[in-house]
Amino acid sequence: MLTKMSTNASAEAIRALEEALGPAVVLSGADIPERNLQDWSTLGPVRPLAVVRPSDAQGVATAMRIASRHGIAVVPQGGLTGLAGGSRPIEGAIALSLERLVGIEEIDAAAATVTVKAGTTLEAIQRAADDAGFFFALDLGARGSCAIGGNIGTNAGGNRVIRYGMTRDMVLGLEVVLPDGTLMTSLNKMIKNNAGFDLKQLFIGSEGTLGIVTRAVLRLHPKPNCVMAAVCGLGSYDKVLSFLGSTRRWLGPTLSAFEVMWPDYWQVATQRVPNIRRPVSGEHAFYVLVEGMGTHEDEKARFDALLENQMEAGIIEDAAVAQSLSDVKAFWGARDAAAEFRQVLGPHSSFDIGLPVADMDIYAGACRARLARELPGCESYFYGHIADGNMHIIACVPGAAQQPYEAIDDIVYDLVRSHGGTISAEHGIGLKKKKFLPYTRSPAELELMRSIKAALDPRGLLNPGKVV
Amino acid sequence: MLTKMSTNASAEAIRALEEALGPAVVLSGADIPERNLQDWSTLGPVRPLAVVRPSDAQGVATAMRIASRHGIAVVPQGGLTGLAGGSRPIEGAIALSLERLVGIEEIDAAAATVTVKAGTTLEAIQRAADDAGFFFALDLGARGSCAIGGNIGTNAGGNRVIRYGMTRDMVLGLEVVLPDGTLMTSLNKMIKNNAGFDLKQLFIGSEGTLGIVTRAVLRLHPKPNCVMAAVCGLGSYDKVLSFLGSTRRWLGPTLSAFEVMWPDYWQVATQRVPNIRRPVSGEHAFYVLVEGMGTHEDEKARFDALLENQMEAGIIEDAAVAQSLSDVKAFWGARDAAAEFRQVLGPHSSFDIGLPVADMDIYAGACRARLARELPGCESYFYGHIADGNMHIIACVPGAAQQPYEAIDDIVYDLVRSHGGTISAEHGIGLKKKKFLPYTRSPAELELMRSIKAALDPRGLLNPGKVV
Repeated sequence: MLTKMSTNASAEAIRALEEALGPAVVLSGADIPERNLQDWSTLGPVRPLAVVRPSDAQGVATAMRIASRHGIAVVPQGGLTGLAGGSRPIEGAIALSLERLVGIEEIDAAAATVTVKAGTTLEAIQRAADDAGFFFALDLGARGSCAIGGNIGTNAGGNRVIRYGMTRDMVLGLEVVLPDGTLMTSLNKMIKNNAGFDLKQLFIGSEGTLGIVTRAVLRLHPKPNCVMAAVCGLGSYDKVLSFLGSTRRWLGPTLSAFEVMWPDYWQVATQRVPNIRRPVSGEHAFYVLVEGMGTHEDEKARFDALLENQMEAGIIEDAAVAQSLSDVKAFWGARDAAAEFRQVLGPHSSFDIGLPVADMDIYAGACRARLARELPGCESYFYGHIADGNMHIIACVPGAAQQPYEAIDDIVYDLVRSHGGTISAEHGIGLKKKKFLPYTRSPAELELMRSIKAALDPRGLLNPGKVV
Repeated sequence: MLTKMSTNASAEAIRALEEALGPAVVLSGADIPERNLQDWSTLGPVRPLAVVRPSDAQGVATAMRIASRHGIAVVPQGGLTGLAGGSRPIEGAIALSLERLVGIEEIDAAAATVTVKAGTTLEAIQRAADDAGFFFALDLGARGSCAIGGNIGTNAGGNRVIRYGMTRDMVLGLEVVLPDGTLMTSLNKMIKNNAGFDLKQLFIGSEGTLGIVTRAVLRLHPKPNCVMAAVCGLGSYDKVLSFLGSTRRWLGPTLSAFEVMWPDYWQVATQRVPNIRRPVSGEHAFYVLVEGMGTHEDEKARFDALLENQMEAGIIEDAAVAQSLSDVKAFWGARDAAAEFRQVLGPHSSFDIGLPVADMDIYAGACRARLARELPGCESYFYGHIADGNMHIIACVPGAAQQPYEAIDDIVYDLVRSHGGTISAEHGIGLKKKKFLPYTRSPAELELMRSIKAALDPRGLLNPGKVV
């Protein structure tokens, strides 16, 4: 009986959506594209009630209003590159895809801003900024597929957080559709605006559970004119921290990356992943990729001097300095090789935990030992954006018929809890990490998150069951 | 009858507070210090029911819990330097002062963070950071008196936003007492933490209406090793914008200030305010103070080269370059002279509006003309952090028996509305600008602010009547 009512409600909702938005915007039944059934979270496909693809913000608001009126849940979808399941469809819910809400609306050179529609890919924004003589600083591996709306919804991090901040730091204005279908346009271009609560902060990083981003005003930066990079070998984590301190003081705000790789990671990346150059030879306790983005060529000499100084001081054991942009690219190859670990190791778990910078190596040692002890044969690889407090882990039992995913999660997150870290530095909670949120957030914090969710979405219709 | 009940409730609340916190913490009647009766908003003194001064976060939570139980409102107070009335007492409400919740708890060199109690002055934090070899970048005129809790509550801006961001950008973790007395400790030190909603954003800039900040983890930066500054004369606003673009490209992330002064302002600042040096001679349509903070002495040559280049290109008409730190200080003198305008002009209105950068001069022209036309004798002076989209205005009718404060507000804010600006770039809304909030925020935004307030503080006990 209940199912029947719900089926009727669903059919009525689809009819109402088709009527309001046109049948081409609403895809149901066999017309639902494969692409909309899942994201990159590997949680597997789910068939939504319908896929709705409006081409303007009003269409998104209309869809949300109709869904709300019929009590149908809505899952917002962008480039579907999320790793935590935030845009994975829900059975009986509408997948509201922003894939047709694309385009650059304006570049304001005086304000140094770009206004974009939420479905626009990150790469398209990077290119438009470049064409206009600016630099859009957000960058991550999925740049060609991910949508800026999703980057905002997950507060994406990426490679240059140390210099330019997270996505949150690049958003000046937002237009959002609220769970009741209200279109809230707040396309502020000003860096400073203290007129009441800064509402956009609510929607950045809340993974589409409080509102659907339809447009955004983003900050642009001046183009960097030279890139300097080196890969260094160091003998201890204390020396890594000392090198980080010196690098911060020496390079100041031009420091754009400080990536640390533990030796187990380094070995797989440079010896087992094909076509990866090994910039420094010999065995070291740590490998650091340090990068600076300068405005003038003469900053290269200073970068070289930093490395010489650290070498003479006995902090660095060995260093290779990039002589060209293709060297820089090759150096990043060892760091980006993580994306190829699946080919080499087979199925595995991957993590984006955060930890106090000083505790990273203690954590890595404890985690590696406990995984190996409790899950015989388990190998683990540690690397990450250390200066940002963000460590990535890849862990698996090579050759196992069935990977002990849950047991790996339990160990990794239990140690995160005892080290006062975070279960997600950049990918978000979505569905995959929801169970572990209390490891990182106190009961008071969780209660407040639920209050906020209830205030904005009292009927729980927007991306239900995600995050909180 | 109602008053009597309320008086009884008040007396009971004070008794309960004294019992829980000790009589020395609770000051009522004649013991209420003069200092707690008003802030810098010039709205005049108000006598609160009592002043409560706990010395730890638990005490703040206890006070809030008792107030909540007795239905008594609470106004949080820090350094009382706010300009919008956010910490002005309310009759019948408790003033909850954080003046005894002071001290630096920890400096973590690896994470580059400082953990502080909310009543600590900005200057004390700057000094502690300096002593530890770091730089705490927030800076504003009231540094010796303002408390960091108030800086966070108002999302203070100040002089270096262009390089280091607002207070929001410096806060990594917060401890907050919620309106029901819950103590929510979220002293995160990690730059990246995407584990659920980023709750701290709610409390930053909401002027003590959603929670009371008790402790904070703040970001530290490397110390800049050289400061470069120049005052330039330019012939048009287009040239100012062109100069801004070149400066951004040339100095990159070392650009720390780009302050523009219109000629009316310049004349009062350099000719009527005593002891202010006039760095450039001659008459110009605009005066720009540009500042860079570098990590190496060799950056000075680049700064000089920028100015030469802009001079040769005909963008700058004249420039004086600081040769020493005392020059830098003297150059800022002309900009900081605004604080002395009261002595020269007498009572006046002052504003911290925000505007799209490209529209600033059009706004200034329209505002000046309309003030003079509608309020005979009205003079207005324009200056500000132009690269941040933030303009300050001082306006008055010199010698008038009664300043037309309301009429000036109406004109200034009406034009802000028609130019798509903000009524507050940095000082906040408090009581003084509440009436004008709809000029800057849409009905949908205001409705959402009210929903958030109702969700966190359903009985309206925390700083009631402020902001929303």
